[in-house]
Amino acid sequence: MDDIFDVVVIGAGPAGMSASLNMLRYGKKVLLLEKENIGGQIASAPNVENLPSLKSISGMDFSNNFFSQLLSLNICFKFENVLSVKKEEKKFLVTTNAAKYFGKAIIIAVGVKAKKIDIDNEKQLVGHGISYCAICDGIFFKNKDVCVIGDGNTALQYALFLSSYCKNVFLCTLTDKLFADDILVNRIKNKSNIFLKNYFLIKEVFSDAETKFLKKIDFVNLLNKKQETINAQGLFIAIGQAPKNEIFENLVSLENGFIDVDKTMQTKTQGVFAVGDCINKQVRQVSTAVSDGSIAAFFANKYLENLG
Amino acid sequence: MDDIFDVVVIGAGPAGMSASLNMLRYGKKVLLLEKENIGGQIASAPNVENLPSLKSISGMDFSNNFFSQLLSLNICFKFENVLSVKKEEKKFLVTTNAAKYFGKAIIIAVGVKAKKIDIDNEKQLVGHGISYCAICDGIFFKNKDVCVIGDGNTALQYALFLSSYCKNVFLCTLTDKLFADDILVNRIKNKSNIFLKNYFLIKEVFSDAETKFLKKIDFVNLLNKKQETINAQGLFIAIGQAPKNEIFENLVSLENGFIDVDKTMQTKTQGVFAVGDCINKQVRQVSTAVSDGSIAAFFANKYLENLG
Repeated sequence: MDDIFDVVVIGAGPAGMSASLNMLRYGKKVLLLEKENIGGQIASAPNVENLPSLKSISGMDFSNNFFSQLLSLNICFKFENVLSVKKEEKKFLVTTNAAKYFGKAIIIAVGVKAKKIDIDNEKQLVGHGISYCAICDGIFFKNKDVCVIGDGNTALQYALFLSSYCKNVFLCTLTDKLFADDILVNRIKNKSNIFLKNYFLIKEVFSDAETKFLKKIDFVNLLNKKQETINAQGLFIAIGQAPKNEIFENLVSLENGFIDVDKTMQTKTQGVFAVGDCINKQVRQVSTAVSDGSIAAFFANKYLENLG
Repeated sequence: MDDIFDVVVIGAGPAGMSASLNMLRYGKKVLLLEKENIGGQIASAPNVENLPSLKSISGMDFSNNFFSQLLSLNICFKFENVLSVKKEEKKFLVTTNAAKYFGKAIIIAVGVKAKKIDIDNEKQLVGHGISYCAICDGIFFKNKDVCVIGDGNTALQYALFLSSYCKNVFLCTLTDKLFADDILVNRIKNKSNIFLKNYFLIKEVFSDAETKFLKKIDFVNLLNKKQETINAQGLFIAIGQAPKNEIFENLVSLENGFIDVDKTMQTKTQGVFAVGDCINKQVRQVSTAVSDGSIAAFFANKYLENLG
C-alpha cells in the first residue's frame, strides 16, 4: 500500500493527460499510470494538423509537450501496467505489475489497440517487415517498396508519410472507396508514387529464408479472384482498433468491448470515470478525447468534494 | 444572393473555428462569420494553461494561430453581424448587416456574454485582477486574497474552487441568501477560508499605480450604509452569463436562452447544429468547445452527404 491519491488516471494518451491536467489544476493529487508509451496512438501520427492553434505538429512532439505540462504541475507518473482495480468502500485499490495504490476516484483512459489482420506469420514478422505504426518504423523502409492496408484517415496518413521516402507505396483496400478526409484523399491522388490497389484482400506474407525479413505479399483480387503479388519489404497495417477493457469488467458496463459512460463520463460505478477511445462514442479524435478528459475531471472533482 | 456554401458557421470562437477546421478538412466550402473578435471570450484570457501541448499561451495568440490555420485552408471569412437565418427548402438563407448568403447547413457558435457589474474600471482591470472565470484564471491567485461576486451555483463553485489554493475568499452577495444547491451552501459554510459578506454592494475597484493590478475593492454595506474595503488581488464576477440566441428562435429550442442539441450537436432543425457556450451544457471550457465543433462537423458532413 504505497500511497493514497485523489485520483488514479490509467493511460497517458490525450484523454488521460487531459483528465490529469485538469485534476492537477483543481489542486488534486494525481497518479498517472501508463504501460507503453506517452501519448498513446497519436504519438505515432507523423503529422497532426487538426489541433487548435497547432497548424502542424508531429504526434510525438504533441505528446511530449503535453506530458511536460503535467510534469511541471508535479504529477506522480509511473510506467506500470495495471492488472486490476477493486472497489474498497470509499476508495479503489489499483494493482500494477510493480505496486499497489489507492485512489479515491479512477479515470480509465486506456485507449484501444491496433487490430491485427490475422494471417499466418503476422506476429512473427512484426519488427521484420510488418508494423502497425508508420512513424515508428517507416524510416527502416527508405527507398523500398511498402504496402499499407486500410482505407481510413490513418491508412492514408501512413501512405502519405511513407511516400516521402519510400520508393513505391501500395495502398490496398477491400473496396474502391476511401473513408477518409477529402484533404487526405486529394493528396493521395496527387502523389506519383502511391498506387491504389482496390479490392485487394491480403492472403499470405513471405519472408526471405536468409534474412527472415518480409519479401513479398500475396493478395486475391476480389473482382476477378486472381492472385496478385506485391514484392514489398514493408507492410503497414491500419485497419482500425480494438478495445482492451476486460480488466475493468467488475466496475463498468461494456458494449462491444467499449465502456458505457453517462454525460459526466462516469461509468456504472460511482467514482469510476472513463474517457477517450476506450468508451462508447462516435467521433474519435484527439479533440474529443481531450474534451472527455476535461469533463471527467470536472465531475471527478465534484465527486471528491462530495466524499468530503 | 452572393454565394452558396456547404456550411455557414456563425461565430469565430474556439467552437466555431473547430467546426470550420474540420469541415475544411472534409473538403467542404465554409463561410465563417464573426461580428466582434476572433477567438471569442478566450481571446481576452491573459494566459491559458489548460490546452493540450500548449503549456502557456495568451488567449490572443491561441486565437490568432487557430484562425491562421483556417486561412491556410482557404476559408471564406467575413466580419459581419448575422441578423437572421431562415430555412428555405434544402438550404438556409443567412442575412448579415452587409450581405445575404446561402448555406446548405448551419453551425451556430455564437457563445455567451458574461454579465458585467458595470462599475468604473471594470473593463480596464480584466486580465489585471478582474475575471469572469475562476476555472480559467483562478490559479494566478494562489495564496492571495480574492473576492467572488454572486450568489448562485457558479459563484459558490468559484468560491469553493478558489478556496483550495487562495488564502482567503470573500463571497459577496446583495442579500443574506444564497440561491444555490444546498450541498454547495453547506460546503461553503464548512470552509474556514471562505467568508460570506452579505448585503455587500460593490462600489469601486482600485489598482496599484505601479503594477496596474487590482489591489482593493470598496463596498457599501447595505444594512448600515457604511463603506467597507477588502484588500483583494482578485475579483471574480459570477452574476450570470447571458446567452444571445434570440435571432435563432425560429430554428432552435431554447432553454433559459441556451440552445438544445442532441448528441450529434444538431438542433431541432435538421441541418442546423450548435456548439460551444451557446448550447445547454455543463462544462464550458475551450477543450469542450473544440470537441463540440469536431462532433458537429462530423455530423454536418454526414448531413451534407445525405443531401446528395
